[in-house]
Amino acid sequence: MEDYDVVIRGGTVVTGSVTVRADVGIRGEQVAAIAIDLPPGTSEIDAGGKLVMPGGVDAHAHIEQFSSNGIATCDDWESATRSAVFGGTTTVIAFAAQHRGMNLAQVVEDYSAQARKGAIIDHAFHMIVADPTDATLKEHLPALIKGGLSSIKVFMTYDLVRLHDEQLLDVMAVARENAALVCVHAENHGMLTWMGRRLLARGHVAPRYHAASHPRLAETDAIARVIAMAELLDQPVVIFHVSTAEGAALVREARGRDVKVFAETCPQYLFLTRDDLDRPGLEGAKWMCSPPVRASADQEALWRALALGDLQMVSSDHAPYAYDQTGKLRSGPKATFKEIANGLPGIEARLPLMFDAMVSNGRLGPEKFVEITAGAPARIYNLHPRKGCIAVGSDADVVVWDPDRRVTIEDTTMHDRTGFSPFVGRAVKGWPEVVLRRGEVIVRDGTLMAKPGSGRFLPRPGGASARPSGRIAEEMDPHRNFGASLL
Amino acid sequence: MEDYDVVIRGGTVVTGSVTVRADVGIRGEQVAAIAIDLPPGTSEIDAGGKLVMPGGVDAHAHIEQFSSNGIATCDDWESATRSAVFGGTTTVIAFAAQHRGMNLAQVVEDYSAQARKGAIIDHAFHMIVADPTDATLKEHLPALIKGGLSSIKVFMTYDLVRLHDEQLLDVMAVARENAALVCVHAENHGMLTWMGRRLLARGHVAPRYHAASHPRLAETDAIARVIAMAELLDQPVVIFHVSTAEGAALVREARGRDVKVFAETCPQYLFLTRDDLDRPGLEGAKWMCSPPVRASADQEALWRALALGDLQMVSSDHAPYAYDQTGKLRSGPKATFKEIANGLPGIEARLPLMFDAMVSNGRLGPEKFVEITAGAPARIYNLHPRKGCIAVGSDADVVVWDPDRRVTIEDTTMHDRTGFSPFVGRAVKGWPEVVLRRGEVIVRDGTLMAKPGSGRFLPRPGGASARPSGRIAEEMDPHRNFGASLL
Amino acid sequence: MEDYDVVIRGGTVVTGSVTVRADVGIRGEQVAAIAIDLPPGTSEIDAGGKLVMPGGVDAHAHIEQFSSNGIATCDDWESATRSAVFGGTTTVIAFAAQHRGMNLAQVVEDYSAQARKGAIIDHAFHMIVADPTDATLKEHLPALIKGGLSSIKVFMTYDLVRLHDEQLLDVMAVARENAALVCVHAENHGMLTWMGRRLLARGHVAPRYHAASHPRLAETDAIARVIAMAELLDQPVVIFHVSTAEGAALVREARGRDVKVFAETCPQYLFLTRDDLDRPGLEGAKWMCSPPVRASADQEALWRALALGDLQMVSSDHAPYAYDQTGKLRSGPKATFKEIANGLPGIEARLPLMFDAMVSNGRLGPEKFVEITAGAPARIYNLHPRKGCIAVGSDADVVVWDPDRRVTIEDTTMHDRTGFSPFVGRAVKGWPEVVLRRGEVIVRDGTLMAKPGSGRFLPRPGGASARPSGRIAEEMDPHRNFGASLL
Amino acid sequence: MEDYDVVIRGGTVVTGSVTVRADVGIRGEQVAAIAIDLPPGTSEIDAGGKLVMPGGVDAHAHIEQFSSNGIATCDDWESATRSAVFGGTTTVIAFAAQHRGMNLAQVVEDYSAQARKGAIIDHAFHMIVADPTDATLKEHLPALIKGGLSSIKVFMTYDLVRLHDEQLLDVMAVARENAALVCVHAENHGMLTWMGRRLLARGHVAPRYHAASHPRLAETDAIARVIAMAELLDQPVVIFHVSTAEGAALVREARGRDVKVFAETCPQYLFLTRDDLDRPGLEGAKWMCSPPVRASADQEALWRALALGDLQMVSSDHAPYAYDQTGKLRSGPKATFKEIANGLPGIEARLPLMFDAMVSNGRLGPEKFVEITAGAPARIYNLHPRKGCIAVGSDADVVVWDPDRRVTIEDTTMHDRTGFSPFVGRAVKGWPEVVLRRGEVIVRDGTLMAKPGSGRFLPRPGGASARPSGRIAEEMDPHRNFGASLL
Repeated sequence: MEDYDVVIRGGTVVTGSVTVRADVGIRGEQVAAIAIDLPPGTSEIDAGGKLVMPGGVDAHAHIEQFSSNGIATCDDWESATRSAVFGGTTTVIAFAAQHRGMNLAQVVEDYSAQARKGAIIDHAFHMIVADPTDATLKEHLPALIKGGLSSIKVFMTYDLVRLHDEQLLDVMAVARENAALVCVHAENHGMLTWMGRRLLARGHVAPRYHAASHPRLAETDAIARVIAMAELLDQPVVIFHVSTAEGAALVREARGRDVKVFAETCPQYLFLTRDDLDRPGLEGAKWMCSPPVRASADQEALWRALALGDLQMVSSDHAPYAYDQTGKLRSGPKATFKEIANGLPGIEARLPLMFDAMVSNGRLGPEKFVEITAGAPARIYNLHPRKGCIAVGSDADVVVWDPDRRVTIEDTTMHDRTGFSPFVGRAVKGWPEVVLRRGEVIVRDGTLMAKPGSGRFLPRPGGASARPSGRIAEEMDPHRNFGASLL
Repeated sequence: MEDYDVVIRGGTVVTGSVTVRADVGIRGEQVAAIAIDLPPGTSEIDAGGKLVMPGGVDAHAHIEQFSSNGIATCDDWESATRSAVFGGTTTVIAFAAQHRGMNLAQVVEDYSAQARKGAIIDHAFHMIVADPTDATLKEHLPALIKGGLSSIKVFMTYDLVRLHDEQLLDVMAVARENAALVCVHAENHGMLTWMGRRLLARGHVAPRYHAASHPRLAETDAIARVIAMAELLDQPVVIFHVSTAEGAALVREARGRDVKVFAETCPQYLFLTRDDLDRPGLEGAKWMCSPPVRASADQEALWRALALGDLQMVSSDHAPYAYDQTGKLRSGPKATFKEIANGLPGIEARLPLMFDAMVSNGRLGPEKFVEITAGAPARIYNLHPRKGCIAVGSDADVVVWDPDRRVTIEDTTMHDRTGFSPFVGRAVKGWPEVVLRRGEVIVRDGTLMAKPGSGRFLPRPGGASARPSGRIAEEMDPHRNFGASLL
Repeated sequence: MEDYDVVIRGGTVVTGSVTVRADVGIRGEQVAAIAIDLPPGTSEIDAGGKLVMPGGVDAHAHIEQFSSNGIATCDDWESATRSAVFGGTTTVIAFAAQHRGMNLAQVVEDYSAQARKGAIIDHAFHMIVADPTDATLKEHLPALIKGGLSSIKVFMTYDLVRLHDEQLLDVMAVARENAALVCVHAENHGMLTWMGRRLLARGHVAPRYHAASHPRLAETDAIARVIAMAELLDQPVVIFHVSTAEGAALVREARGRDVKVFAETCPQYLFLTRDDLDRPGLEGAKWMCSPPVRASADQEALWRALALGDLQMVSSDHAPYAYDQTGKLRSGPKATFKEIANGLPGIEARLPLMFDAMVSNGRLGPEKFVEITAGAPARIYNLHPRKGCIAVGSDADVVVWDPDRRVTIEDTTMHDRTGFSPFVGRAVKGWPEVVLRRGEVIVRDGTLMAKPGSGRFLPRPGGASARPSGRIAEEMDPHRNFGASLL
Repeated sequence: MEDYDVVIRGGTVVTGSVTVRADVGIRGEQVAAIAIDLPPGTSEIDAGGKLVMPGGVDAHAHIEQFSSNGIATCDDWESATRSAVFGGTTTVIAFAAQHRGMNLAQVVEDYSAQARKGAIIDHAFHMIVADPTDATLKEHLPALIKGGLSSIKVFMTYDLVRLHDEQLLDVMAVARENAALVCVHAENHGMLTWMGRRLLARGHVAPRYHAASHPRLAETDAIARVIAMAELLDQPVVIFHVSTAEGAALVREARGRDVKVFAETCPQYLFLTRDDLDRPGLEGAKWMCSPPVRASADQEALWRALALGDLQMVSSDHAPYAYDQTGKLRSGPKATFKEIANGLPGIEARLPLMFDAMVSNGRLGPEKFVEITAGAPARIYNLHPRKGCIAVGSDADVVVWDPDRRVTIEDTTMHDRTGFSPFVGRAVKGWPEVVLRRGEVIVRDGTLMAKPGSGRFLPRPGGASARPSGRIAEEMDPHRNFGASLL
């Protein structure tokens, strides 16, 4: 009973809320011991001078998915998860994306098949619901949630996928009955359309006008509406990719009065600004994402919101489009910003960027780094404690970080297929050195040692964060807020 | 030059911001003097022991208009304005209501013709825009605004008339270019539809469920969105019939950061509560209006908002439907709340109710009574100083109030054709005794002395409150809030 | 009965809330008519092309008073009110200032005697209470309030006069029982002392460090405490000279939840900034006042607060100290900022500065100009409608403004004895041309035609704004907020 | 290297942020392993079916201290820490209380000697500074902080100990220079005094009037002031015993804009209300504490604030006075509430009450229970990771909880010397079964096995939470907020 398959020895282990000098003993796929002076393992990893941290959990990545305007992302499951794991991420939640007219159960099956074939890391899906028919709402969703897909993504904009308010409420009601979470891309569709139309009519077609076409008020209005709906139905929601100070403030305000709102932001909103879009020709397209990157003051506000727990997690929103005719430039050299695919690669850069800021530069520190990039997403999406922490009984997804390695990001640094990085030129300190997935070393010395398809699907039953905890459904009283009692 | 056609002698005159003991001298249609001891006029009105106040300005009444679900209001211009003037109101702004497919210019012409035929008091129109086609936006609206219809009403709910967000922005943009105001019925359509559907599905069909079907959050969400749009375009808006404490709070917050938002409430939200709907059978239908009447705490909050100036005015939202098969009961005795026309009569009761509360009971006092019921609507809708005050040069629309007369409102008290009053049973102190319209006594001893069609149309050019005052349109800078600069 | 002693003919009259073309007829000391085409008066004033406005009401001026560090202001009643009237101000409220050990009744008598001797305009007093002994609280204050001094000024800082919190509550309780107002100089004494001590210890002695020694947080903390006390006792208060955006925001927030708070600001906070103190040697002393002038962003916030009614009035806080050894420089050329008297002259400049900004430059307009500088102070301090408006029956205190006259303010422009103006160099458009006091022309063609002592004391009984209106004293229930019920 | 002195086997271990099924291996005084299937230890503790949690950290207890009105608490170090350890608390921070005239270094030495003699558990001190002389500020405080007493307690009320604002700033400045924390009893002294005086004057002398004499506004005003000072100097503070919803809201608001404010509440504010004081005769005295217990709505607000992290910890504020002539009744049977000592026992009840609510009743759960009662106080007061968690290398202060044991609290349940419990009659589920202190079992089967004096002093150097992290001291610019730059 004392034999460990692997011992990670002599490192500084960030288990989650505590940082200790300890060895980590792994037996099979799980962590079996955190202890001083463990006996030799069958295999040993020397972590002297290193940080030993849980593998990252990236709760928001688009993989082998068609964009809302019909352009395929350039990564398949193999390339996307290869990139992820080189960046220290060992769990990813991607999307099974229904478009209008599609059978949701089939959509999930199709996306799952792709992942089974290519995935190198463990993974799960958010279901994108774009066609909330009776079949979707009454048959497929309940069954799929029961089957372990306990989160739903909905869009308030993009013609192919967006739901109107009544549909949003229908989806939320189903989520509540089945204890699933609802994640939302929150931007006011009418504002975006109106702005885009006006800008183009005035000849403002360059990528930098993309930012102008998504006014801050479009984000805040939509977040406010999601919050109102969450409150009406007493249903937990996650606001995806908060980009503005005002958006973060709305989330804080709602949480303060007990509305069940969670929220993420992404590295692009913490490290880039709209000035990055201001490049000659179409080059700014490389920095186009939705919502757009904003201003320095927003960066500060988002950091503060992370510190305060108003935002709980940082995901990549990995949405890779090559800067060529297969991707960003598909509409040719005369394309307007409306014709250019929105999205940035980031599944690999996420952790090194955050590590550099939080650990190397001391902003909030290593425990909070682990919390924001692994612990919180695992908890919110019902993967905890299997994922997101180093704890006895948890999956041995572990990253040994070299805190001293310095890397300047180049367009060729990452292992995805995008071919560029929006973080190009940025120098970071700290880089993943060894990555274990369920006890197995899969990255070492820059070499990947896992096969496509070796990642596993992670069923996530509805519950915990998804289940309303406290408000009792009110009586059928016509004089009360009726939402919750109608479910 | 010293000869007055009429002298109102010896009264206590509430000119607007000041209350004085004075005579009011009228020459022709205008006030020519406010003075002590005027010489005898050709005709004299003894106002000893009386209050002399400007005639009321009711900025929100539905007259000879079809409801959003196709039921005609039961008053024509003659009966509606007869009722108005018996209640002390001498100016009304009604609606010229475009439905989808209608030519707005023709709509305005048709409604104007009705008013020319029947109106007893001076009047103006808000244009309801339900079909913002190119012709509506680029031809008709600019011309009609120039012609003196400087306010537009839009709906965020009701299938026949509602605009989606992009259309709202289009209308606001035209309003801004032409210095017109935009008035909004602000409720979230999807929430209303979803709630109504769920309630009916559970058999909750009685009138009292109408209130439940319009959740408070539907109002606050929509008000927040209007405010966001007003901010985006730097365009002044008026929130119609604010019914909730939270709605009033949103307006206060927005005004505090310089967004150009005005707002009204109505007597029903100040004097009734949702308990009034809770009657046997369909009788609660008499108290059905949209948004619905709320709770006592909302009444207090709305009064406070009026005191603070967050809400500037109290209009009637007169929308009379008889309690019979021509109106409320058109769908028969088995009707659900969804099939019953929404709306209450109130054009006559408005001033006595407000006088009783504000003057007889001392809440805020006579100057504020005049401000809220006459001065502010006149100023906001560009009728000031012609209407809404007693001032030299203003139209001599004057009401002599008997502050001591006590009336208990019965279903037959008012002069409209609805046949009932939602304020039935309420005892008030203070009642209009003599009403002058442009210098002519038209009500005295309970007798009307004016003919249908003697009321005049009031052109109201765009401007003042409609014109953005201060924010300079920003440069064509992609890094800024772009709304205003795209106009 | 048609004979007017004076007719001001052909002007544009800003009566208060309305602006009309009319003549103003005066009989004796009061306005007797506002009318078109009045018959000739005994005397006529041609106001063609001119604005006819009520004389200003300056509710905050230090006249013949010793500063808190013992230096006399350089104006006596004659020079101060001469200066006032040349600037268009016809009513002033000054201070009767108790220091510790003084009998308040005697203080009031002494100050009244000075005013009777020198005052050219009508006037009243705020009583400064610095020694709230039993005699002060139980005998003198009730009697003096009854006698027409219905406002009390208290200081939260300055060693000679400041009250500690318990004393503040004692004074407020007496004010509440007798329906008087309490006006407060609100700055946190400990913060000022601590900052001053530290600055001097580091050798930061120049006048510009005066601003640093009064941190913004000292103002906001003290305003918050006054508001808490007003709320505890349900007693109306006036916050004097609000200088910061945050201070104005606190007042707005409190008013929004029904706390009875009024507030003023002064021209120095609207037109000057702390950069004005940054001059060679001791010259910055000319711009030293308390609280100090702040930043441009504060100016904007204070203007918005005036627009919204959060602040109701603009007073001068006239506190004139000559820039010589009798005043600012009394402690010699080596004086630190702590030894230099705080205060600026402004009783004359107030109206021309505000007129230029509000009327000539269109900011908020003439009605609001009258409201802020005359109407609101008259109402708040119970002088309305006798003062602060042009209305039949009101005192005929009228100023005929030449809206086209341009003046560049110099140190010698004003008629007080300070010898300099902090507004030196500022060009304004609009200047008082003729000033009437109770029907008598006292300024014309730059000549004063009234004698010292011709101004009258204005008794102001407690009441109206001073009386709590609405909250009912709570029962003697140990479980409630007890303040109000203990009175 | 595999030999453990103690193995706690088979329990459910709440390490801090994670709950795992694991054994805990102890070597010497520290935790050496958290692992599955540890080899047998020299001694074994069977934790099957039990929860294994870190010992509690009580950061606020009055032990062998004289109250502000001179009455001694009835526990000495032996009885207080015996009571603590029976309740599962293994670390306590008590007070070394300077009164005016005392030498602070001597005070610390005296209190330390008492603790060395009697303490059963490890302990630290907050220094109460009541006499901030030059010697205190410049000599004693810096030296004592360096020596490991890195937190200072100050009072804003109580005649014997309170500091005025300038003194508070002086103490905060010293704290900032030496990286110490400042903890504050925040109530407005003047309000308390005024209320007490008025109540007594009206004959309201019973204990229940104690609550009325401490108005909510006294707490909120003082908290606001502490926050303003913390902001001025950029100095971290801890607000002790927050009792009101508004107080918690102020802390949230300040944290949201980056002011370094931490806060605690106590079980009495979560489980008792002012109704508890309403007993015959003087019995209510048993529930008298300061600030007083409030209302149910406050309880809910405080729980929410704990959930949100606005409040970080729950301490006992143990302040035991017997209900006899040595304590509460020292002034005899005719005593007014002003003469009765304020304070409640709670050092033992704290954890069982919180466990019952949070774990047995599921409110927030076991990880948050550990965080609030052990982890957060350890981190905030620089005892982490030595105390407050179960982690490799941490002190083996461990409690084995029986989650099923039901106890109804009686006046004799606890082990302190007070003789009564304010929580009498409350039934809880869950009770500490075995307590280890640094690896040694000191409580088992209701028996204490440790000697007085075996607890150790815990030096806590200034730093981490005490050190301002981010705001750079501003330049010596007279135009800026100056506080921080003057240090």
